Amino acid sequence: MLNNSYGFSIWGNSNFMVEDGKICLNTDFKPALIDIVKDLRNDGYMGPLLLRFPHLIKKQIVEIYTNFERAKKEFDYSGNFQAVFPLKVNQYPGFVKNLVELGKPFNYGLEAGSKAELLLAMAYNNLGAPITVNGFKDKELINIGFIASEMGHDITLTIEGLSELEAIIETAKERFTPKPNIGLRIRLHSSGSGIWQKSGGINSKFGLTSTELIEAINLLKEANLLDKFTMIHFHIGSQINEIHPLKKALTEAGNIYAELVKMGANNLKAINLGGGLAVEYSQTKENSERNYTLREYANDVTFLLKSIANHKKVSEPNIFIESGRYVAASHAVLIAPVIELFSQEYAESKLLLKEKNPPIIDELYDLYKNLKPANALEYLHDAIAHMESVLTLFDLGYVDLTDRSNGEILVHLIMKKSIPMLGNKQNFGDILKIQNEVQERYLVNFSMFQSLPDFWGLKQHFPIVPLDRLDERPTRSASIWDITCDSDGEIGFDERTNPLFLHDIDVEKEDYFLGFFLVGAYQEVLGMDHNLFTHPTEATITLNENGGYEIKDIIEAQSVLDILEDMDYNVSDIQEILNSRIEESNLVDEKQKKHILGELYLFLNDNCYLK
Amino acid sequence: MLNNSYGFSIWGNSNFMVEDGKICLNTDFKPALIDIVKDLRNDGYMGPLLLRFPHLIKKQIVEIYTNFERAKKEFDYSGNFQAVFPLKVNQYPGFVKNLVELGKPFNYGLEAGSKAELLLAMAYNNLGAPITVNGFKDKELINIGFIASEMGHDITLTIEGLSELEAIIETAKERFTPKPNIGLRIRLHSSGSGIWQKSGGINSKFGLTSTELIEAINLLKEANLLDKFTMIHFHIGSQINEIHPLKKALTEAGNIYAELVKMGANNLKAINLGGGLAVEYSQTKENSERNYTLREYANDVTFLLKSIANHKKVSEPNIFIESGRYVAASHAVLIAPVIELFSQEYAESKLLLKEKNPPIIDELYDLYKNLKPANALEYLHDAIAHMESVLTLFDLGYVDLTDRSNGEILVHLIMKKSIPMLGNKQNFGDILKIQNEVQERYLVNFSMFQSLPDFWGLKQHFPIVPLDRLDERPTRSASIWDITCDSDGEIGFDERTNPLFLHDIDVEKEDYFLGFFLVGAYQEVLGMDHNLFTHPTEATITLNENGGYEIKDIIEAQSVLDILEDMDYNVSDIQEILNSRIEESNLVDEKQKKHILGELYLFLNDNCYLK
Repeated sequence: MLNNSYGFSIWGNSNFMVEDGKICLNTDFKPALIDIVKDLRNDGYMGPLLLRFPHLIKKQIVEIYTNFERAKKEFDYSGNFQAVFPLKVNQYPGFVKNLVELGKPFNYGLEAGSKAELLLAMAYNNLGAPITVNGFKDKELINIGFIASEMGHDITLTIEGLSELEAIIETAKERFTPKPNIGLRIRLHSSGSGIWQKSGGINSKFGLTSTELIEAINLLKEANLLDKFTMIHFHIGSQINEIHPLKKALTEAGNIYAELVKMGANNLKAINLGGGLAVEYSQTKENSERNYTLREYANDVTFLLKSIANHKKVSEPNIFIESGRYVAASHAVLIAPVIELFSQEYAESKLLLKEKNPPIIDELYDLYKNLKPANALEYLHDAIAHMESVLTLFDLGYVDLTDRSNGEILVHLIMKKSIPMLGNKQNFGDILKIQNEVQERYLVNFSMFQSLPDFWGLKQHFPIVPLDRLDERPTRSASIWDITCDSDGEIGFDERTNPLFLHDIDVEKEDYFLGFFLVGAYQEVLGMDHNLFTHPTEATITLNENGGYEIKDIIEAQSVLDILEDMDYNVSDIQEILNSRIEESNLVDEKQKKHILGELYLFLNDNCYLK
Repeated sequence: MLNNSYGFSIWGNSNFMVEDGKICLNTDFKPALIDIVKDLRNDGYMGPLLLRFPHLIKKQIVEIYTNFERAKKEFDYSGNFQAVFPLKVNQYPGFVKNLVELGKPFNYGLEAGSKAELLLAMAYNNLGAPITVNGFKDKELINIGFIASEMGHDITLTIEGLSELEAIIETAKERFTPKPNIGLRIRLHSSGSGIWQKSGGINSKFGLTSTELIEAINLLKEANLLDKFTMIHFHIGSQINEIHPLKKALTEAGNIYAELVKMGANNLKAINLGGGLAVEYSQTKENSERNYTLREYANDVTFLLKSIANHKKVSEPNIFIESGRYVAASHAVLIAPVIELFSQEYAESKLLLKEKNPPIIDELYDLYKNLKPANALEYLHDAIAHMESVLTLFDLGYVDLTDRSNGEILVHLIMKKSIPMLGNKQNFGDILKIQNEVQERYLVNFSMFQSLPDFWGLKQHFPIVPLDRLDERPTRSASIWDITCDSDGEIGFDERTNPLFLHDIDVEKEDYFLGFFLVGAYQEVLGMDHNLFTHPTEATITLNENGGYEIKDIIEAQSVLDILEDMDYNVSDIQEILNSRIEESNLVDEKQKKHILGELYLFLNDNCYLK
């Protein structure tokens, strides 16, 4: 990140390339993201934009199936491979409709974790492609699952606890002939270190213990439903960094699989590994989050399951996975314009030096005037120390507001002047030493709470790259501010986790857009309406055969009235009150009132982001 | 928390009391929360419930005004006191409409941080009560602010940067006579330790530096708008734990105030302290989050501002505050039913001991049979160690699933038997030592992501109390699981931060509800729709003159179709697809189809939570 690479080679998966300093899609025609953005802005869509790229969804689906089919061939594996997309990762129509269409040739299915997700899956899943249902279930959710099988869906209800199984058995007695398949979530002890650890292990939130598994088999036998039990399921966690814990878990799961088959579960054919395929979000090698490839993952899973099956003398199980992040993350890019740079006010012309300044201001002025490459780092440190003194003197009444202001200006001038001096050296080592002091704040027209909730909650890094100027060296260590009224709405520069450098631009004269990449998984549905900033305007970008692109399915960010209606306000009340408050005002005349009412109508029907 | 007090005396603010083992409102008639919940459930509102108590909103407003009025009298302070509620803390109609009604006698106003919030404030704020507008502003937002003043609102636009001021000056030229007042957000250096620290200090997200303040005054003078500049504003952060940093900030702000008055800002009359009044969320003394009272806060602010004004020879400024958390947090309680307890499967009758068991299982059985108070702790430790061995033996193929199950059952039986033995001692010290091993998992019908987002994002603790059985000692160290498919959806037992004990109940036979308190601030609007679980069913509880209570303004959690419509699905498409998939199914007959279509209609129009 100290040059202008922005880590494409680490997180980019060859999805993008740089040409003429602009990020372009790495496709035949190589459209530049900034051109797409300009098209949308020319059509009046300002504020943050979420762009969806269906060709990147397809790429991920193809990668998964190709790798597992190859591994099956390589190891002469007799079980099938199947996969579903967990809707919780992205339930938005702009994603889901593309996903099911692109997944059709692979018989790619959907996973649901709640009633709403299941009903969505029943409507949009390709008939014949698998549906799995995870999560806690009441009688109603189970009934919906039965309806899915009555519709003709290939559905498997994963049992998370015995009471769910009892409810299924009851429901099976009440309903019609078609019945869903039944999966049992097993509780593994081997996926963490130490059996009592919080997540993944024996104390994790999900899954049946051995005692419950035996009880479940007995209940199924009694109810004559053992033939519907087809799958065991486990999940060792989201975003698996290394493959080793998965291997341990597979060994344990393989043993349980074999034991259950021996107990008479003759239709048990599949092991569902859940999700967990990691996405590389890092922009630096030091922070990289994944130490395996999909090829290794597919090979290890196939090879290991084959060994266990052979060893235990059971048939090779079908392999089933539910990785969502891996499929969805790359398809969406958030693009937001930079509105302001913090330090632009500090021009030399703003100095209000007096006939007689406090000595410390004169010293700062001398530092500024005598700054040169040889002393830049030293003078910069001195300047920062002097600024602390100026602030203390102000609090104690020894210097006035003008002196304080002169101090601020001089320190920033020294920064601005010294950075290129330091930057021209062989490396940026010196800048790194003082990066926190010299960082520039970029105010960006988006809400971090709405668009990058995992940054707020989990400090998850997302790649940040300016859309153009990539042929110029970025010189400012940068922190990103969002437009919410919340001081948490900041992605701070951090030498270790977020060493982001951006360009020193003048926003009055030129546009500067930042792309936030890999935001297609979880970020949309977890988005928080802080300050009532809602889901940004979205558009789908498809590639034409002839090389061009098309902007489709534009959904504008919600209007103010829509937001308030969602919160259960009576919006016609609100309009009436506002109108009558204008009508009754004696501060404006009739003509002005008419004008204001028109404006109000427009503002209420416009979205909430800045323009 | 080791007894049944649940820390009411720490966080409760005398809002609740316990009678007959039930939590009751601490009012004349003392209604029990569980009775209110039962009323709602009898009317068919199952799942999680958010109850609002307007009398607790009123209590907080009264406390704030009473304390500042008292302090003004005590110190013979000549400035006024004014307050606004920041809408970002809670924009929901069930809260806002009560707030403005209850705030009317005090001329309590609203603060807005976005276009949607400002339009909401313009509709619902009592005319004459102040409105302040913070956050970054574009020309459109500024125009809305001018309309507010044209309506007759007493509005102040707080300037966060000079470009906003330029836009205001431009707008003032274009529009009609009434103009909003102008506030300047000042950037303090003194509110953190070290001038370069991230938030609050000179590098914080908001506010004008000295240079910008001087520039702002000059711009205002040139534009003939200096008479509209009435307020300076600062905010040192949310949930201030101690009062000391506020005093430092006030000193600095007071100096800046005096300097600006000297520079000719004759109408500058108010210092706006922003928010930050803390809420005590802790259930244990060790974790308490606030070390001052509102009385101390009001006294310190008033006294300090008086001293500075006298010292600097300027008139005593009006005091303006924007505390929202303090006003809103206590008014809402989330109540959710416990659905399942993890360890209920482990009855002795489930043991499937063989003629010849592996030695380690026989040893576990002996531990269980010979357990007594004198050896309980030792045996419990032994049992846990044995269980680790059983799991390892299973992975290596030395014991089978039945042995593993017997091991699990015996360990849990040993836990169940030993806990009362340990609990009967003078204190629970021994249980504390092994609490992580013996904790029970309570599955609760709510979404942590939707209803307690600050727990996910900030590990903010909220008081958790069962609604009844408070006259019985709770014996199980407890962790709370929500119903999302996410392993993060867990509030783990933690000896230090969340030493929660709950009752050992049988959910098949009895209801058990947990109350999550102080959720009225931020939690609603930050709620995430993970797995499409949306805002829970809410109701407002008002107290009658005659002592009874009334349940009003019930808003049921969104239906599945509503949720999908909010995500921009075409819901009639979804209904049509589902219906036609049933119509076309050859797995069910015509009569069955008719029945299924009816069910589908009901499920699509029902909410997503478990029943």
